[in-house]
This record gives sequence, C-alpha cells and structure tokens, in this order.
Amino acid sequence: MLDVQNDPASVPVDIDRVGIKHVHFPLMVLDRAQGRQHTVAQVEMGVDLPACFKGTHMSRFVEALQDWSGILDYPSLKHLLNDVQARLDAQRAWISFSFPFFLERAAPASGSKARMDYHCRVAGEFQGSRLLFSLEVEVPVMTVCPCSLAICDQAAHSQRAVVRVQTRNKGLIWLEDLIELAQESASSPVYALLKREDEKLVIDNAFKRPCFVEDVVRNVSHELEKLTQLLWYRVEVESQESIHNHSAYACIERSLTGMKA
Amino acid sequence: MLDVQNDPASVPVDIDRVGIKHVHFPLMVLDRAQGRQHTVAQVEMGVDLPACFKGTHMSRFVEALQDWSGILDYPSLKHLLNDVQARLDAQRAWISFSFPFFLERAAPASGSKARMDYHCRVAGEFQGSRLLFSLEVEVPVMTVCPCSLAICDQAAHSQRAVVRVQTRNKGLIWLEDLIELAQESASSPVYALLKREDEKLVIDNAFKRPCFVEDVVRNVSHELEKLTQLLWYRVEVESQESIHNHSAYACIERSLTGMKA
Amino acid sequence: MLDVQNDPASVPVDIDRVGIKHVHFPLMVLDRAQGRQHTVAQVEMGVDLPACFKGTHMSRFVEALQDWSGILDYPSLKHLLNDVQARLDAQRAWISFSFPFFLERAAPASGSKARMDYHCRVAGEFQGSRLLFSLEVEVPVMTVCPCSLAICDQAAHSQRAVVRVQTRNKGLIWLEDLIELAQESASSPVYALLKREDEKLVIDNAFKRPCFVEDVVRNVSHELEKLTQLLWYRVEVESQESIHNHSAYACIERSLTGMKA
Amino acid sequence: MLDVQNDPASVPVDIDRVGIKHVHFPLMVLDRAQGRQHTVAQVEMGVDLPACFKGTHMSRFVEALQDWSGILDYPSLKHLLNDVQARLDAQRAWISFSFPFFLERAAPASGSKARMDYHCRVAGEFQGSRLLFSLEVEVPVMTVCPCSLAICDQAAHSQRAVVRVQTRNKGLIWLEDLIELAQESASSPVYALLKREDEKLVIDNAFKRPCFVEDVVRNVSHELEKLTQLLWYRVEVESQESIHNHSAYACIERSLTGMKA
Repeated sequence: MLDVQNDPASVPVDIDRVGIKHVHFPLMVLDRAQGRQHTVAQVEMGVDLPACFKGTHMSRFVEALQDWSGILDYPSLKHLLNDVQARLDAQRAWISFSFPFFLERAAPASGSKARMDYHCRVAGEFQGSRLLFSLEVEVPVMTVCPCSLAICDQAAHSQRAVVRVQTRNKGLIWLEDLIELAQESASSPVYALLKREDEKLVIDNAFKRPCFVEDVVRNVSHELEKLTQLLWYRVEVESQESIHNHSAYACIERSLTGMKA
Repeated sequence: MLDVQNDPASVPVDIDRVGIKHVHFPLMVLDRAQGRQHTVAQVEMGVDLPACFKGTHMSRFVEALQDWSGILDYPSLKHLLNDVQARLDAQRAWISFSFPFFLERAAPASGSKARMDYHCRVAGEFQGSRLLFSLEVEVPVMTVCPCSLAICDQAAHSQRAVVRVQTRNKGLIWLEDLIELAQESASSPVYALLKREDEKLVIDNAFKRPCFVEDVVRNVSHELEKLTQLLWYRVEVESQESIHNHSAYACIERSLTGMKA
Repeated sequence: MLDVQNDPASVPVDIDRVGIKHVHFPLMVLDRAQGRQHTVAQVEMGVDLPACFKGTHMSRFVEALQDWSGILDYPSLKHLLNDVQARLDAQRAWISFSFPFFLERAAPASGSKARMDYHCRVAGEFQGSRLLFSLEVEVPVMTVCPCSLAICDQAAHSQRAVVRVQTRNKGLIWLEDLIELAQESASSPVYALLKREDEKLVIDNAFKRPCFVEDVVRNVSHELEKLTQLLWYRVEVESQESIHNHSAYACIERSLTGMKA
Repeated sequence: MLDVQNDPASVPVDIDRVGIKHVHFPLMVLDRAQGRQHTVAQVEMGVDLPACFKGTHMSRFVEALQDWSGILDYPSLKHLLNDVQARLDAQRAWISFSFPFFLERAAPASGSKARMDYHCRVAGEFQGSRLLFSLEVEVPVMTVCPCSLAICDQAAHSQRAVVRVQTRNKGLIWLEDLIELAQESASSPVYALLKREDEKLVIDNAFKRPCFVEDVVRNVSHELEKLTQLLWYRVEVESQESIHNHSAYACIERSLTGMKA
C-alpha cells in the first residue's frame, strides 16, 4: 500500500508540532498520601516534522500510548517520550496529560473528611536528549474583599476564585506541593464537606484575612520563588465576583533562568 | 439530479424533529427601553418528518433564515415559522434563538450606568396552526448565606448564583419582566459597574436579606404564578458556593394547565 | 448552634429538587468484559423539600457519598439512594453519575486493539419506594452522505456524528448494549486506532452504507423498540457536517408506557 | 471612604496584568464589504500594577468601556487604550475583544448567498508609547484525507477542520484577509448554504485537492510569510477526524523579528 506520508512536503516548511488531541485514557498518578490513585486523563501527543516529509504517522501515537504502562511517574513518562521519539523518528516528542486529581481534606473543626478534586496537567518534552516538564494545577479558593470589609458595617462580599499555577521545571514536583501553596494564598481554602461548626470557623477566619486577586497572585508568586527546581512559572487568579457579572483577574509570569515560555 | 431525500425511509418511523443546529445569525431583538437592540444569536431550526420520506431538505432552513427580516418580534417569528412550514412541507416547525441581551443598569447610590448582559432564549413552535412560545432567561444574582450569618460573628459567605427561568406561554412576554423578577428574588442583584459608595450600599442591603437557593427558587416561583400567560414554567437556581468546590441547586417546575413540558 | 434550615419557608412552596451539582468523585463501574473499571464521575444529588422547611442540609449529600462504596451497580446505587432518603428525611431521592466509560475495540483488518471512551450517565431515582433508572450514552459514529454519493463522481462527504441515547427503565441495562446498538446504526463505527489496511476497509465499507442523520436516528429507534425493559427513550443524532459550519440534527422520543419524561 | 487599594502591597511584587474578564459588550466592527457590522464581544482589559500599590481600581475599566464609542477601528482602539492607561495611571494597558464576525458567501455553482460566521479576536496593547496589535481568526474548512484517497476504491474520509491563525503586528490587518487565506489552504472552504449543484461541485473539487493537517498548516504558513506587517504568527489546524474519536493537530509558530510571543 502507498505510504503518502513519506512523500516530501509540497510546501517545504518544518512543522513545530504535529500529533493528536482529545484522546481520553485511564491513568494511575502518584499520590503522596496513598502511593497511587486512579483517574482519567485527556491526552495530547506530538512531535516535530521536518520539511522532507509530507505527513507524520498518527496511529503510532495511539500505539505508543496503548503499549505504555499507564502509570504516570518520572521514569515512565521519560520512557513513553523515548518510545514516541523512536516510533516517529523525531527530534522532539511532547506529551500532556490533563486529569482530575483527588486529595482527602479534613474539615477544620469537625475533622470530617472528604475528597476534593483539583484539575491538574503534567506534560513532558524531549528536545533531543534534554527532558523538560510542565505542571499545572487549578486550585479553588475563597476571597473576602478587603475594600468592602473596610467600608461596610462589618459585612463584605466573598466569592470563589481559582488560582492557576503553571510551571516549567527540570524534574517533577509533587502536585500536592503546588496545590497546598495555592490553597494557603487566599482568604480561605474551599472544602468538599463542612459541618456547621466548620462553616463558622472557616468564615470567621476568612474575614480576618481579606484578599484581592492582587494579594493572592503575589502570595503565590512569593512562595513559588522559593522552589529551586523551577525554570519558569505563571500564576493567574480569577475571582468570580459575587457583586458583579464579570471576573477580577491578576497574572504574574517569571522566567527564572532567562528561559522563554 | 437525484433527490435521494424524497425516497421513502427504509426504516419507516416518524421523526419528531429534524433540522440544523449551531447556526450563528445577527439579530435585532425588542427592547422595552430603546425599541430594538442588535445582538448575535445561536439558532436551531427543525420540522417533523413522516415515515414516507427518507430525508428533509436541510438547505431550505438556511434559505428561510437568510430571507427573513432578522428582527425578532411576534409577527416576524410567526412569519418565519410559517415560511419554514411551507418550504419544508411540514406539520410542525420549530425555531430557537439564543442570544446575549443587554440592559442598562444604574448603580444604586452613584447612579453610574453600565450595560449588563443576560443570556436569553426565545423559541417558537407551530403545531399545525397552534403557535406556542418558549422563553428562557439566565440572571446572575448574589446570595448571602442565612446559616453562616446566623452562626458567625457578623460575617457570612456570599457568592454569585444564577437563576434560570424557562417558560411556555401563548403569547410573547417581555424578557425584561422575567429578568426583573429573577433579579429581585435573591439577596441582591449583581452589577456591571459599582463605585465604592454603591458597593457599600449593595453589601449592607444584601446582608439584610440572606437567601438560600431554596428561598430564591421559591421567590421566583411565587412571582411567576402571577403571570396569567404562562402554561408551564421551570425555575432553577445554582449557587457557586464560595466555601465549597461545588454548587448548591434548587428547582421548581409547574404545569399551569396540566400541560406537558 | 442555630439550625436555620429547619425553620418553615417564608414562601410556602414545595421544591421539586434541591441538592448539589458539579461534585467530582472517583468511581468503579461495571464492565461486561473485565468485571469493573475505574473512572471519574461528575455527580449530582437531590431530594424533594416540602414547604414546611426553609432549607435542606447540603452537607449530608456529601457525607452519604463519602460513606458509599464507590462501586456503581444496581444494589449499591439503591443503597445510596436509600441512605440519602433517610439522611435527608425525603420522599424522593435522586442521584446522577456522568463519566467516561472505556471499551477495548479491535481494528477490523489488523485486529490492533485500543481503548475507546464513551461519555455515559447513570441516574437513579427513588419516588417513595419505587425505583427508576435513567441511562445515557454518547457514541461517536461516521456518516457518509447519501445525497452527495448519488450526485458526485464516486465521491461523497463524510463526517463524525454523535448519537446520544437516553433511556428510562425499571432495571439497569448494560451500557455496552446501548453503545453497540448506536455504533451499528450509522455508516461506520469510529475507532481509536486504525492501521492503513483498517482505514481502507472502514472507508470502503462506510461508502457502501451511506446514512443521513434521519437514517441513523431511525435505525437506533428501531433497535431500542426491541428492549423490553424501557419505559421511555430519546435518540438524538448530531452530524458535524464537513461541508458546512453547522450541524445536521434529528431526534425521536417515545414513551413506551404513556409515561412522562 | 477608605481607599484600601492605594495602600502599598504587603508582598512587594510587580504584577504583570490585573483587570477584568468575561465582560460582554455590543460592538461595531469594520467590514470591508459593508463598512461596519454589529456584533457582541467578550472583553478582557488589564494594566500592569507596580509593587507600591495593593490593588487596582477595577470599576475604572468598566467606566472606560462605557464611555467608549463601541466602534472598533485603529484610532478608537488606540483611544480606548490611552484612556485606560490614563484612568488607571498605568505603564501598560491591554484590551481584547472576541466576537463572531459575519461574511456573506456565495455558493460556488448556484451563487446562493448566506452569512458565515468566524470567531475572531482583536487585541491591542500599549507598552509605554509603543502600540502592538494581536489578531486571531478561527476558520472552519474541509479536509479530504490523502492517505485514504490513495488506498481506497475511489473513496476517502473527509471532515471539518478548524484553522486558527494568531498574529502580532504593528498595524491592524483586515480580518477578511486572514480568513480568506485560511479558507484557501485546505481541500475546500465550508459554506452556510449549498444547493445540490453546489454540493456536487464542492465535493468533486475537494477530492481533487486532498490535504493532511500538515499540508494545511504549511499552506497557511507559506501565505502568512508574505504579509510584511507581521512580527509573529502561530497557525494551528485541528481536524475532527471522521474515522476516529480524536483530532489530528499541527502547529507552526514563527517570530519574524526575533520577537517573543
């Protein structure tokens, strides 16, 4: 059978990334408390393609994924990237897994436990023999508005905000560390389960620590600067304002090595 | 050229609705304050198809829409439905327009004005010669939690909630009436623009009127029962809890004539 | 501490459903080939609330879920519904799980195996002591256009379409049966992994079985009528037309016992 | 009243961008054929914030937008950016408008006309006194697979693909030019309205010009290189494969002045 893909490109331009998107795959991810947890990921995979080839061989991405262990840790992600690089005869290979990640949280007064989910992403890229990782966590928090607390009769509006942290780093970092750091940056963490005594404690504490999105983004940035493994990071905070129909937003992005995002 | 669509169906089953989805179309809608306003709608159109035909003629929906005035009011929607019924030789014709609808709101203390958008839907259906309308509005509001206000030291969590009202009625109702009614049902309306003096007033007032989703859904239901044109309604309230990672939800659905949704 | 929720409602209206939405939860679901599979569900839970109570106790939904086995089968779903009914002192209890469901598929010529995911939903409702189930599967298929095949020089446009089947039934049905039935209703199933010899076979076969959305929706309806457990069903087919910027759509809905959706 | 925002930040870090998101606003945009057209935009606005201020004044963004003409062209966007810079006392100001943009298209054989919508984005940024623009267009096209056409008995799978072009440039470029360029890069444009004779012509032509995503991304890149106003561009093509449950994807990104994205 003809292999049209191996023809030279009629427009001879190198392609940065070619591959597949919106693949779903069951996964086991590392979990500091329990060792491993089951989840389901949305997967993207890609390679570079030089001008001398018309097309890549898309089915080989799926074959590499099917033959993989499905356990996401440093050696297995490296192994999968190596395998993709070899099967596709590529210089650069790139894989991204986006998934819900669960952590058990205890309510602050009652100690009642429940699972919270955080949307996370782990990506790896082989550039020749250099291996880079990208992480992303989305962490819901509560913000109590400092302005309204200052001007109102002991009242203030509060709302859910989302902290998104993206990093590039040489090795893998625990997702739990990024989640923890984001969770502590605002007026309060949010919870899956709160009994009445917990609700009282959470709100009384949150009103003692009012935060603008500007405060939250700075708090996270301040903590991220302490992590020596990072090459680059971006923090975004989006607050679903309870008195408005739009969001308040703040972003800090830093390269720690002059490296480009 | 062959007209495959006019063949009889190989599996002789009547189809309830066949048509097109995800069509975008610029629109003028009625606006009580300004007469008309420009917006952009997502459009769905459909007809019934009896077992004696293999397929409908999809391009005729687009032709009917292109030949239409693009001004959405009672007579023009009726005209469009008639046109679709005739072009497609159908017993039933159905059209739905979903669009952002803008209302100018004044801030309660400063009087500063700004446009707020509400997601709305207007649909019409011809069943033989009987014409029915469906409306939908999504109205963001603020809820202050009555439970936390009762147990905390003069604090309470608040959040944005969305009230969705769906109705079926014989004639068209002003979208403004449904929006107004939903907006007054919670702890406070939300605004596009608030200066500091407005923010103080909004929050002080909201804390005087704490509401669960249960309170909001009942308030809206209570007001809807007064509208004599309604045949059926559903009210849903979803509150984006600021202390949780999930929503609180309440729903009331009533048929006012024994009519099926 | 005050229990504001137990106060009577100031607007004395019965609420049809009150509960929580957008909860994520790791789950084990039944799988005919492998016994069980891990997945992650989005969960909704609710109960009725009579006019004599101001509010429900939302934290009890989360407690019921946390105390549950997390294994979704007939007895465990019934047990969970019973538990919710008891904790919330409700007449009606309702729970819905939406999740990606994976099936291994063999490519038709090479036999290469890969996992395909299908979006599914399983919901249960206790109405007093009567237990009802709702199922939903979304199954991607391929449609080759019969009209273009008839008028073009041996060419035709094809595209991905999605078949959505919703059912209400007395007992649980295998999701695999609904998926299989939808998959066989169109020009071809779609696959996660096809080698070149598979691609040739799939396309040659699909061009021998051209289908409008009208054909697909009728084929599925015809098969569903054979399932004796069903009380009601709705089939929708949406085809992402490759020559248009909109979708073609068809829907058949049937009550098999005069039952209301 | 207290102006908490003017306090110094407790964590003294400069913020790259702070502002508002998810604002909806009715807009008039330039249209080469008709002069102007009405649409509705989703708006984001932001400024930088130095470490010496705790918070920005979010309501001033909304005031600037309300006081603006609502007509999006070069001088008015520049004026709005200047106004935001002044009101917020900022070094950098940034505004982005995302909206559906309509173009009338004639079917290739019948000449039947209908409106097609394209999702577009226009953003401007003042960096001190330097003004930069970013554009984005999403253009649906049709791809006929070259591999299947080579191996099948005169059949091939086709599907809708989306070409997304993002540019950074010194002046504004006509959106129509980017849309045109993307539309010509694949097997065929897609249409809102095709009669039977059009359908035949479109498909016969598309089968004469089979394209992988790799071909499309290269064709667009090749044309973009001719535009002298560009400082940077990214082209992405995502094909909703009709034989698979996932997308094929290709991306080319180029800086034309060593400029960072």
